[in-house]
Amino acid sequence: PPPPPPPFQAEDGIRDMPTGLVGSEMCIRDSVYYEDTDAGGVVFYANYLAFMERARTEWLRELGYENSSLATGPGVVFAVRRVEVDYLRPARLDDVLDVTASLTRISRASLTFGQSVCLGSEVLCRASVQLACVDSRNFRPTGIPRELLDRIKDE
Amino acid sequence: PPPPPPPFQAEDGIRDMPTGLVGSEMCIRDSVYYEDTDAGGVVFYANYLAFMERARTEWLRELGYENSSLATGPGVVFAVRRVEVDYLRPARLDDVLDVTASLTRISRASLTFGQSVCLGSEVLCRASVQLACVDSRNFRPTGIPRELLDRIKDE
Amino acid sequence: PPPPPPPFQAEDGIRDMPTGLVGSEMCIRDSVYYEDTDAGGVVFYANYLAFMERARTEWLRELGYENSSLATGPGVVFAVRRVEVDYLRPARLDDVLDVTASLTRISRASLTFGQSVCLGSEVLCRASVQLACVDSRNFRPTGIPRELLDRIKDE
Amino acid sequence: PPPPPPPFQAEDGIRDMPTGLVGSEMCIRDSVYYEDTDAGGVVFYANYLAFMERARTEWLRELGYENSSLATGPGVVFAVRRVEVDYLRPARLDDVLDVTASLTRISRASLTFGQSVCLGSEVLCRASVQLACVDSRNFRPTGIPRELLDRIKDE
Repeated sequence: PPPPPPPFQAEDGIRDMPTGLVGSEMCIRDSVYYEDTDAGGVVFYANYLAFMERARTEWLRELGYENSSLATGPGVVFAVRRVEVDYLRPARLDDVLDVTASLTRISRASLTFGQSVCLGSEVLCRASVQLACVDSRNFRPTGIPRELLDRIKDE
Repeated sequence: PPPPPPPFQAEDGIRDMPTGLVGSEMCIRDSVYYEDTDAGGVVFYANYLAFMERARTEWLRELGYENSSLATGPGVVFAVRRVEVDYLRPARLDDVLDVTASLTRISRASLTFGQSVCLGSEVLCRASVQLACVDSRNFRPTGIPRELLDRIKDE
Repeated sequence: PPPPPPPFQAEDGIRDMPTGLVGSEMCIRDSVYYEDTDAGGVVFYANYLAFMERARTEWLRELGYENSSLATGPGVVFAVRRVEVDYLRPARLDDVLDVTASLTRISRASLTFGQSVCLGSEVLCRASVQLACVDSRNFRPTGIPRELLDRIKDE
Repeated sequence: PPPPPPPFQAEDGIRDMPTGLVGSEMCIRDSVYYEDTDAGGVVFYANYLAFMERARTEWLRELGYENSSLATGPGVVFAVRRVEVDYLRPARLDDVLDVTASLTRISRASLTFGQSVCLGSEVLCRASVQLACVDSRNFRPTGIPRELLDRIKDE
């Protein structure tokens, strides 16, 4: 079993979490349908980002939260600020993909995920995705709701 | 040449308009990009509906209205209630398509369009799309804003 | 338990199957993610067709076939010829949808499905989708591979 | 008028080109339609990549080439290998966007573009996109067709 994660430390509002922290990793399995592919016969490069968003959503749901209720309740949205994606091998129609989302960094107003799209043991695509917590009306940066922060910390 | 359209008649708030009524026809030209295609090498069947929505949006814009300002101003959205689409021939990557939207029927709370997607003189896809004017918050049917109705009638 | 389906009858190559025929009905469950929605706050009307395509793909997979192997093996693709969709109520972010595909008609070269998108017991969207079996290279109509036809008949 | 671009130099098959090189910059203008947006009221983060692909396609078309004919003729496809995207401000429904593609680096088997999505003078999104020239059948790296390389060099 992996060693327990190091204690969670607030430090100027920035806290680093080890990749793959137990409970912060989410993996979903999805098939590649026609809608995901393009005339090159492979998954269109933008659509991997949609797969990754699904995995982050399921990560959030696992914590007991949904994007829709965050927007209508505390009035926040997680907006993507930056992505880096390496496309290593193409996914094709009918491939069954495993898509992971693993929290790698958290601050008071942002989350960063390491993500991957795999076909069996083969990594097809690897990404880092940084999200900012913003006000759902004006998209200005705001703090992650305290209750959600605590929930992440408890994992 | 086709006979002139019959006179425009109000009848219990229901008015039928002949297809192709001058000023109510919009045609946009769009290329087929990778995003539109699928692994079959052709445009994915759902994506023709996106092309058609663009043409309806431009029809509305020609009248001086935008979906965004209708939602924030009078608080209405045009929601699709029913579509019938005939797919005759496939569109392919790099095809340059003409997409039309022609108002065929209008009532106090709905609009119906005849639409087509053409490659040169060849009709690839033909559709009828019925939209209801709904309240943007609860999606309940509501009347088309009077000013917009008059604007359509003036065309 | 439902009564057994009536005997399957060939008639000039055209065979009608009752909706909901045991073994020909497929139901998949999918969440609504950000990618599926639009600025109206609901699922974009074209995207229901993508949900429905997933259900038809799973129906085919249940029979032991995949779109990709049909295209590379016998060289056929099921191309949508016509859709009729009634949108009754909108689906929203985080809704968990049940999407059905039920074979309602089969001929030597085409399949027709009755499909629905439901939120719990509520039908949000209902459709009829007719597909033609076409040659994967030139999209000309061709017969459904005999083996697949037999497989459908066995259900 | 801008000064003429510096002479093009081959150097171990790797050649660097200054951003904004005359003739290598493409800018397209596109409206934001419902299909591009999500329930957050803004353009879905993956869809900016679709906008960017359109600009690269138009850059290629300006050189006299199309993705479809490259795939069927010399049998090559430009596959995205890596993207870095910074999302600075959100685009919204009905925004009219300028999307640029500017060749920043070229080697015998890859192209790198600097790209941006702007609303008037405001940069909403900025990206670097690296593409590899691959065989259209097996997606293995291959050289950019000589004629196309020369055409780029002539710009």
